Amino acid sequence: MVETPLFDRLTIIGPGLIGSSILRRARETGTLARHLIAADRSQDVLKRVQELGIADQTTTSLSDAAAQSDAVILCIPTRSILPVAEQILPFMPPGSILSDVASVRSNLGPTINAQLPQGVSYIPAHPMAGTEHSGPDAGFSTLFENRWTLLIPPENTPPHALKKVEEFWQRCGARTRQVDDQYHDQICAMVSHLPHLLAFTICDTADRLSTDIRGDVLEYAASGFRDFTRVAASDPVMWRDIFLSNKEILLKTLERFQNDAQAMADAIRNEDEEAITQRIERGRRIRQSLIENKQA
Amino acid sequence: MVETPLFDRLTIIGPGLIGSSILRRARETGTLARHLIAADRSQDVLKRVQELGIADQTTTSLSDAAAQSDAVILCIPTRSILPVAEQILPFMPPGSILSDVASVRSNLGPTINAQLPQGVSYIPAHPMAGTEHSGPDAGFSTLFENRWTLLIPPENTPPHALKKVEEFWQRCGARTRQVDDQYHDQICAMVSHLPHLLAFTICDTADRLSTDIRGDVLEYAASGFRDFTRVAASDPVMWRDIFLSNKEILLKTLERFQNDAQAMADAIRNEDEEAITQRIERGRRIRQSLIENKQA
Repeated sequence: MVETPLFDRLTIIGPGLIGSSILRRARETGTLARHLIAADRSQDVLKRVQELGIADQTTTSLSDAAAQSDAVILCIPTRSILPVAEQILPFMPPGSILSDVASVRSNLGPTINAQLPQGVSYIPAHPMAGTEHSGPDAGFSTLFENRWTLLIPPENTPPHALKKVEEFWQRCGARTRQVDDQYHDQICAMVSHLPHLLAFTICDTADRLSTDIRGDVLEYAASGFRDFTRVAASDPVMWRDIFLSNKEILLKTLERFQNDAQAMADAIRNEDEEAITQRIERGRRIRQSLIENKQA
Repeated sequence: MVETPLFDRLTIIGPGLIGSSILRRARETGTLARHLIAADRSQDVLKRVQELGIADQTTTSLSDAAAQSDAVILCIPTRSILPVAEQILPFMPPGSILSDVASVRSNLGPTINAQLPQGVSYIPAHPMAGTEHSGPDAGFSTLFENRWTLLIPPENTPPHALKKVEEFWQRCGARTRQVDDQYHDQICAMVSHLPHLLAFTICDTADRLSTDIRGDVLEYAASGFRDFTRVAASDPVMWRDIFLSNKEILLKTLERFQNDAQAMADAIRNEDEEAITQRIERGRRIRQSLIENKQA
């Protein structure tokens, strides 16, 4: 059964990893939107999008694109979302939907919600998926499959618009769930932001060892360290933005972690075998649960 | 050209991940040893080894196995190595070689070296390879391919014996290099022990969140967290032993890490964009170097 496309004209602002994955998914299924517009400040990015053939139309004019769309998704760095939203909202037609895929909610929701023109809805949705790569070449149509997408609808979101966005992400293959801003930011701090911070830090620590050890560290990187370095290859600007946007919650989560690391260090210093084993065993339990939840 | 097997009778004590990988490699190439003996305290483990067909002979008598071998490799938990070495050394014939694959050198080298019977050599070698799995089923013959094996020969090691062990590991597909005890333990702390400690800790931190967040953390585990949990699935006893054996160096390395994490936290708290970006960018550089060194 061929499904009608959810949207007539969909604009992706920022066709990077996430944005170009949405475009590819839309191309592949034909059921997300009838007409695909990629908008970006960069001519080079748009040129690449054209070469890849993943949009029907490209433009550097974000407002033009917004004015002719019934859905716009901002797939840009977290700290650019508010200024860009403020730029394009005045041009968005009644009945259209604005969305974003920001990694941190902070107070984006209420702020943007307060500026919506009549008849325009705002339903952000964060797909919990990604790789360490960036740009239009990085995306793929199955990125969101079997991954969670968290919907974070602000107050007074019209139910039909919410339903549409939820259906959109389900057609991307994602499982969907609604959460509030605070909860979203706490979950993301734990499963994404803190792990990235730790990965950046351990690479930093290794990088600043004495020259001969540093070179050898790279040589002998066993799987533990290599996992960290893969994560650490992510885009610095994006992650700087995320850390700053989720500052309070991230720092609190890091503090919990630091305390737990200190407790493990104390257990080692005191040669407390039972305490050490206990802490390690907890890690296995979480892993077991993960496998059962098929996220592993 | 068919190479003569390096050893006549090789005993693997502890046919787990590493031990059973050596046995499989030996079976596959036929050039490591002519006759393979698997020794272990556990009848169940030996039964499994027999079922897998990866040894010619199995025994629970470590001394018997040692007495009839020209090479013995201890592939057992780090803290068991000294007691087992002391148990079997009196039975080892002149011209035979004792080795181990301990994850931490500590002062094992000098201690065992001082107890060698006449004509017996001791050349430990640590293959920098592994997975989070354990036991005789976990091994595979290509585990060591293109990975480094560090040889840590104590003082006065006979050159011909050292050469033989080096050739052994090269026939396992490994690249080899000689280092001293202190250097070995520092490298391993950085590339393996500390990453594992951090992985155990972050899983611990997540595990002790409030019940609803905890469950969701597992649900939404994005790739950053999942990498950690994979590492954290490792054997608790093995890692407890490693942490305790490398206690001083590990704690010092952790302290460096904690200071660096604190510096990143301060940069975030102060919203120092440049400092944050710098620290993240260092991670990318290490990653780039790793790729160039083909470890990635």
